[in-house]
Amino acid sequence: MFKIPIISIVGKSSSGKTSFIETIMPRLKERGLTIGTIKHDVHGFDIDKPGKDTWRHKQSGADMVIISSPQKVAIIRDVDEEYTVDRICDEFGGGFDLILTEGYKKGDKPKIEIYRPNKHKELLCSPETDHLLKVVNNKETDEGEALFDAKELEEVTEIIVDFLKNKKEDSS
Amino acid sequence: MFKIPIISIVGKSSSGKTSFIETIMPRLKERGLTIGTIKHDVHGFDIDKPGKDTWRHKQSGADMVIISSPQKVAIIRDVDEEYTVDRICDEFGGGFDLILTEGYKKGDKPKIEIYRPNKHKELLCSPETDHLLKVVNNKETDEGEALFDAKELEEVTEIIVDFLKNKKEDSS
Repeated sequence: MFKIPIISIVGKSSSGKTSFIETIMPRLKERGLTIGTIKHDVHGFDIDKPGKDTWRHKQSGADMVIISSPQKVAIIRDVDEEYTVDRICDEFGGGFDLILTEGYKKGDKPKIEIYRPNKHKELLCSPETDHLLKVVNNKETDEGEALFDAKELEEVTEIIVDFLKNKKEDSS
Repeated sequence: MFKIPIISIVGKSSSGKTSFIETIMPRLKERGLTIGTIKHDVHGFDIDKPGKDTWRHKQSGADMVIISSPQKVAIIRDVDEEYTVDRICDEFGGGFDLILTEGYKKGDKPKIEIYRPNKHKELLCSPETDHLLKVVNNKETDEGEALFDAKELEEVTEIIVDFLKNKKEDSS
């Protein structure tokens, strides 16, 4: 069975992980890839809007609520224990070319680390023990906004595309 | 293969479908059932909050975003064409005892119609051509809030529980 390729975007707090995903996404979409993302949330999230019908369903005790339209579908479901990335991908990732996770630094997936030298002294990952595909530097603006080097973005795009190509060859 | 039982809660506009689901849910949960709901949205919905990480992932072009915590998981994904209720249940409904849909009046699922006589003259469903399990009257308060009869709620709870029992026997 072809396992969906997964790359984890990791980095210390405020390193710029979300900004990196936002920046790399259009470059990967240009290559014709279908892409899903998984955000690791450790504190508990609240995604629906109070008062909406789905919110009311959930509040009244539903274990799962789904809203389906001609353009998209959304699912919110309770879990007894946290799903692993593999389980999420097995259950929901069918048909995607690539899954990028934001977080899951302790996971066993290949990683891209976002490194913000102005804020952090050391890398989060260990190049010896982690499967580190690339370290991407967040050079940041004077205002502290995330700023990535165009050449480095090109490079990491190629690394991801090559990674997917190799995965495909491995499984065929 | 055991098909997950589905009942559609239907009714004319503002008949009280969401209020009915809110009211019947705790009664069904008391019976130990795991329950999912599907809301049919024809206009397009916007479930995530602008600025959130998952929202930023989606805005940047991701075809699917997932957020996963120890308590729950949420998925928002684009679709090329609207999913049927059966497809939604096949893909996401595994392990549930019952799926209640709000809407899908044109679907072929067994239905419970919410009827609000103060507002509507006729039923939405045809007792001849629809598989109508029950018509539930929304008697409404003087302020127009949904109001259901306790005895009728008991009755419809039993109808649903019996329906599930029969489904189980059919498939064994």
